[in-house]
Amino acid sequence: MTTHYLRNFFNPTSIAVIGASKRPESPGHRVLQNLRNGGFKGDVFAVNPKYRSISGEPSYRKVGDIQQPVDLAIIASPERCLHDVVRQCGEKGVRSAIVLSGAQTYTATGEVQQEQLLSIQRRYGIRLIGPECLGVIRPSAKLNATASDLNALPGKIALVVQSGTLCTAILDWAQSRQIGFSTVASLGDAADVEFGDILDFLATDYETRSIMLHLEGVREPRRFMSGLRAAARIKPVIVMKAGRHSAAMQLVSMRTGAAKGADDVFDAALARAGAVRVRSIDQLFAAAAVLSTERRAFGNRLAIVSNGGGPAVIAADRAVDLGLTLTDLDATIHNELSSLTESRRPFTNPIDLRAGVAAQTYARATELCLQDEAVDGVVALYSSQPAISANEVAEATLAVAKKSRKPMLACWLGGDKHQETRQHFTNSRAALFETPEAAVEAFSYLAHHQRNQKLLLQVPGSTAFRYEPGIENARLIIENALDEGRDSLSSIEAKTLLTAFDIPVVRTLEARTASEALMLAESLGYPVAMKISSPDIQRKAAIGGVRLNIETPQAVRAAFNDLTLAAQNARPGARISGVTLERMHNQLHGRELQVGITSDPVFGPVVTFGSGGNLVELTRNRAIGLPPLNEVIAKDVIQRAHAGRLLEAYEEHPAADTRLLIHILLQLSDMICKLPHIRQLDIDPLIVDDTSALALDASGDVYRAFGVRQIPTVVLIDSSGHVAKRLNPQDTALVEATQSIIAK
Amino acid sequence: MTTHYLRNFFNPTSIAVIGASKRPESPGHRVLQNLRNGGFKGDVFAVNPKYRSISGEPSYRKVGDIQQPVDLAIIASPERCLHDVVRQCGEKGVRSAIVLSGAQTYTATGEVQQEQLLSIQRRYGIRLIGPECLGVIRPSAKLNATASDLNALPGKIALVVQSGTLCTAILDWAQSRQIGFSTVASLGDAADVEFGDILDFLATDYETRSIMLHLEGVREPRRFMSGLRAAARIKPVIVMKAGRHSAAMQLVSMRTGAAKGADDVFDAALARAGAVRVRSIDQLFAAAAVLSTERRAFGNRLAIVSNGGGPAVIAADRAVDLGLTLTDLDATIHNELSSLTESRRPFTNPIDLRAGVAAQTYARATELCLQDEAVDGVVALYSSQPAISANEVAEATLAVAKKSRKPMLACWLGGDKHQETRQHFTNSRAALFETPEAAVEAFSYLAHHQRNQKLLLQVPGSTAFRYEPGIENARLIIENALDEGRDSLSSIEAKTLLTAFDIPVVRTLEARTASEALMLAESLGYPVAMKISSPDIQRKAAIGGVRLNIETPQAVRAAFNDLTLAAQNARPGARISGVTLERMHNQLHGRELQVGITSDPVFGPVVTFGSGGNLVELTRNRAIGLPPLNEVIAKDVIQRAHAGRLLEAYEEHPAADTRLLIHILLQLSDMICKLPHIRQLDIDPLIVDDTSALALDASGDVYRAFGVRQIPTVVLIDSSGHVAKRLNPQDTALVEATQSIIAK
Repeated sequence: MTTHYLRNFFNPTSIAVIGASKRPESPGHRVLQNLRNGGFKGDVFAVNPKYRSISGEPSYRKVGDIQQPVDLAIIASPERCLHDVVRQCGEKGVRSAIVLSGAQTYTATGEVQQEQLLSIQRRYGIRLIGPECLGVIRPSAKLNATASDLNALPGKIALVVQSGTLCTAILDWAQSRQIGFSTVASLGDAADVEFGDILDFLATDYETRSIMLHLEGVREPRRFMSGLRAAARIKPVIVMKAGRHSAAMQLVSMRTGAAKGADDVFDAALARAGAVRVRSIDQLFAAAAVLSTERRAFGNRLAIVSNGGGPAVIAADRAVDLGLTLTDLDATIHNELSSLTESRRPFTNPIDLRAGVAAQTYARATELCLQDEAVDGVVALYSSQPAISANEVAEATLAVAKKSRKPMLACWLGGDKHQETRQHFTNSRAALFETPEAAVEAFSYLAHHQRNQKLLLQVPGSTAFRYEPGIENARLIIENALDEGRDSLSSIEAKTLLTAFDIPVVRTLEARTASEALMLAESLGYPVAMKISSPDIQRKAAIGGVRLNIETPQAVRAAFNDLTLAAQNARPGARISGVTLERMHNQLHGRELQVGITSDPVFGPVVTFGSGGNLVELTRNRAIGLPPLNEVIAKDVIQRAHAGRLLEAYEEHPAADTRLLIHILLQLSDMICKLPHIRQLDIDPLIVDDTSALALDASGDVYRAFGVRQIPTVVLIDSSGHVAKRLNPQDTALVEATQSIIAK
Repeated sequence: MTTHYLRNFFNPTSIAVIGASKRPESPGHRVLQNLRNGGFKGDVFAVNPKYRSISGEPSYRKVGDIQQPVDLAIIASPERCLHDVVRQCGEKGVRSAIVLSGAQTYTATGEVQQEQLLSIQRRYGIRLIGPECLGVIRPSAKLNATASDLNALPGKIALVVQSGTLCTAILDWAQSRQIGFSTVASLGDAADVEFGDILDFLATDYETRSIMLHLEGVREPRRFMSGLRAAARIKPVIVMKAGRHSAAMQLVSMRTGAAKGADDVFDAALARAGAVRVRSIDQLFAAAAVLSTERRAFGNRLAIVSNGGGPAVIAADRAVDLGLTLTDLDATIHNELSSLTESRRPFTNPIDLRAGVAAQTYARATELCLQDEAVDGVVALYSSQPAISANEVAEATLAVAKKSRKPMLACWLGGDKHQETRQHFTNSRAALFETPEAAVEAFSYLAHHQRNQKLLLQVPGSTAFRYEPGIENARLIIENALDEGRDSLSSIEAKTLLTAFDIPVVRTLEARTASEALMLAESLGYPVAMKISSPDIQRKAAIGGVRLNIETPQAVRAAFNDLTLAAQNARPGARISGVTLERMHNQLHGRELQVGITSDPVFGPVVTFGSGGNLVELTRNRAIGLPPLNEVIAKDVIQRAHAGRLLEAYEEHPAADTRLLIHILLQLSDMICKLPHIRQLDIDPLIVDDTSALALDASGDVYRAFGVRQIPTVVLIDSSGHVAKRLNPQDTALVEATQSIIAK
């Protein structure tokens, strides 16, 4: 038996239903009925001062009147009583409570009320699911702690859903397909118990073999990531994150107060933790169907069997979209299929057996593929034909699928015709999908889970490039900038940081006068590049502050004067420390890239990689890696970016040396772990070719007083002692405002 | 009554079923039964030499024995008899035939047989649907000319499907949702009658109000485009093109012999014709559901009504994905909803009415949105709640939707629970979708159709930039290159073509000696750029053949020698005509772009637009426009490309002048229409800023002897007089091989 701090939510021995009711349509009545009629073995106490008894059992005035200990309180009381009720739970010694009622977080008053609720919760050490949630179902304990008219069948999938309405819809859908669950938890506002907590519980819950998660926002990214990593290392975790766009997040923020992070950072976080992301309800359903079969794929090599070309082509398209491999058919399979179908035409993957294929031939083709060592899973597509029983085909195919450990993902195309077939599949605990695409997607979840497991097995930081950087030096640079009241680093400062972390940087010298520039140019050797040097000017090229390919002393002198003039004109008042000089590098095969560090409001610092060049930020083509990176994950980041393709060999250009780029991404990851004061760092451009990688320019920002992550939760108390506002520590604008108040 | 050349396929007065059979499971029996039992009013003659009569009606030995005229032959004969049967049809004077039987095009023998079939077809002028197709259904004529056990209900949607198995699946699905069709045609191999023919027929078919097309390949792109344009100008056309990836196209080519064009070119062709593309079977079904309601949207502004936040957020995400506008709610709507729900919380779009909302309130919210002038359509999401009848909500909502001309797209989330609700929707001819995403997608098809109509209403070529180019001069340049046996144009030749079409080009002068270079540099003014000039070297930068920013005479002389040496080393034997010089342009705000002309194997010449720069082709980020372009379509091409975002204002950079870029795209479109010999033309880079657009370099290829499009179909006849191989005129490699044979 698990002894997790959430155990009483899922395996309580005694429950108090507070706000229990006699009115049949009220939540307080329904939750009581769900518990009493569902076969729950422990004690269930009704609490409501209005009644002496409900349905023949006594009703207590308050939870404190119950003599026996209470493991779990389910609160369906009206909103206005919530605070009192939770306080009474605290006094009674109840340590777990599910708050079904709403707390109106939509309004400012609502926020204050929720903050007060949380302060009571913290005072008594009560863990709280909700408010405004559907509740919890644990079929093995015959526990249905919801006010819903739906229940869950027992199974091995844990379902964790933010939205109660969506949870209802999934339960309804699952019931009609006889898909069961180990645990269902709807978190609603997730004011206290968060996704991270539930994941942490489910990771070691032996009843749960896989986890499906729907969420809209994360309040506690660190807890979330640690729970997600723990769970995804052991079992498949499928995540649907809604609110991908800010127009949709508007509603989310209003409801849950979650911060708006970038969607690609969320993607990277899931990849880093080893979870698989789905993007639509259809895909979530498909994932549920395939997880319920408990078959797993050990690779991404797919065979498609079909009795018609049309659906097979559609499935193959989707497979390529998703990066799956369509295995080449073994010659023996081809030969056997040719003799079975008495056909001289070639069989390739997808296998088109044609409309009139016999049930036994169809099943045999599926079996041959399942037996092939080069195949990790089979998608079986069938479209009904006159004079052939689609059911017979289904039965024959299910019989061969049962013998294999590999997943068989079927789609019998059409409408109501296949009701009977659906029943066969349900009875055989096999997955039947509505469309060819859904079947292929379901296989991809299995394949991606397997791939993620491989990524996670990598030992972090065990790279050939291991290097102990001059961190002290780097810290001094940051402190010096902060002492001078700056939060942006000069190009030379940023480059020094890079050097400290073993990232190769072009040698840059600064000249304060034209004659100094002449001397430096001689020592570097011609041709040189010259750039304006100012802590106040970040994008030098944009204001005419860059001159390339300067070949003569005369030109150096002219450039020095032109550059300072251009800077003064473009940015009057900017502090100009001089002009920097670099030797021009003639990199014939160099790829212009951009790498760096940026900070996400939800997940904090991330490493970015993209293509470089003119105005590249407008196209926002970047891939994200969540530190700490390891070699395999860095490689994955590069592959996921469009810019990754820039590294391939192309015409006269040999392939760029990816290892050098990986090294730099790892060093950046190391840098942000060791120097959390860095808010942003840009290497732009980074030039990588077949033999070298070189940072040509860099810029950076640091957190002025303390990093966002060091700020405690800030609560503003109004004159009457009430909580006026709880600050989201990720909300930079508010935090800065608060800092300025503190500074006064 | 239409007098289209395909009319006898859909409105025949007499039909011969050739290969009619007594065996109940045979196609020849089933098609006869479908015709006789379906209520078809005309004559149906059975033809089969094996029988005297079938089901009490006479059976003819051959079609010629029938005394009356025959409008349509439906051929279910074994493959080996096909040629004889079609010949007999020709002799009898039948001019329309549907060939249900297969022709084994998978194999080489099959191809020969199909070619022979087509030569018979051509000799007699018979139009032929198939071979290997499901056939044709025309509910209004009670004509079911298929061997399927399914039929179609009468309706207003035309369904044209390449794959017979997929057609069966769609019919099955549609039947269970009572969605009807005006016409169903499954084309199978489409050896003669092609998608273009059917579209041409359906464009003016007054029974058809919208068209759904599934296809895998196009053999006759010109006919296809002309039919598609004709149809899409009048009614919504939804297209699903399968075989988007080459792995999937392998199976398609094997089956249909269709050429493999680029998928983005197909996309551009659909956009150019005004059709809407879907990418999955789910989306095809959603499109069918929404088209069957016959509501149309007049814009892309969407309101989402929901009784829960979760599904609403998911719908909003999808809406943003698809470029739809989530309208801001009118204050009066907000006020009425607040008073109806007695809530102080803000209502925004999506409208979250919360779980417990009453049926009348939900319906009223939907009505308010439908009445709002700023809303073009409403997505209504409902998740069932205990103690509230989901049916009542559906009825109330359907009642208000009926009163509006705008589309209401509903999704009642869940599984079997909503069977009764589904029936309500079906009875009201309203669309009910399985997921929030499907409902939003369905609205997007209506909105995109409307947008396409606007694009098409533009008068092509009526631009402010109208200019009569020096076409004669351009032709001479191409002829000169061909006379010299070259198929690639030098940079100067390519630039001269651009100048002839009013595309601004950097002034380029060629020097054959170092001292000539010095003189030219003086006349251009320093700094200059120098590039190697050779008809054999296209990518000069890649071999070190480019020097930029040369500021002094000494450097010009050094560069001349370096460049010629570098070229000789990199490409021994290359013809070097000298070195070109240009004045360096200091374009502070210039965007580096790439535009040009390329040729697609299916659709021929297309205009391309993408970002420029180092190795950009590796990222394949381009948008395609099918000529002739007009201003609105050129604008659309720019918006569709990632690179379009490069033109926006950004930090110190003012927005680039899009009109200049549009002008260039229009001129390229004009060029390819007037000079079809051009195979490829690249302007790379094209620099565009806020005041100018300038082509810095260009290259091009022309068709050597004659353009691919001038080649007739080539048929190789073997020694015994049989067709050995039919060449696909789009297959460049084969065509070139043939050319070399002809040249000998």
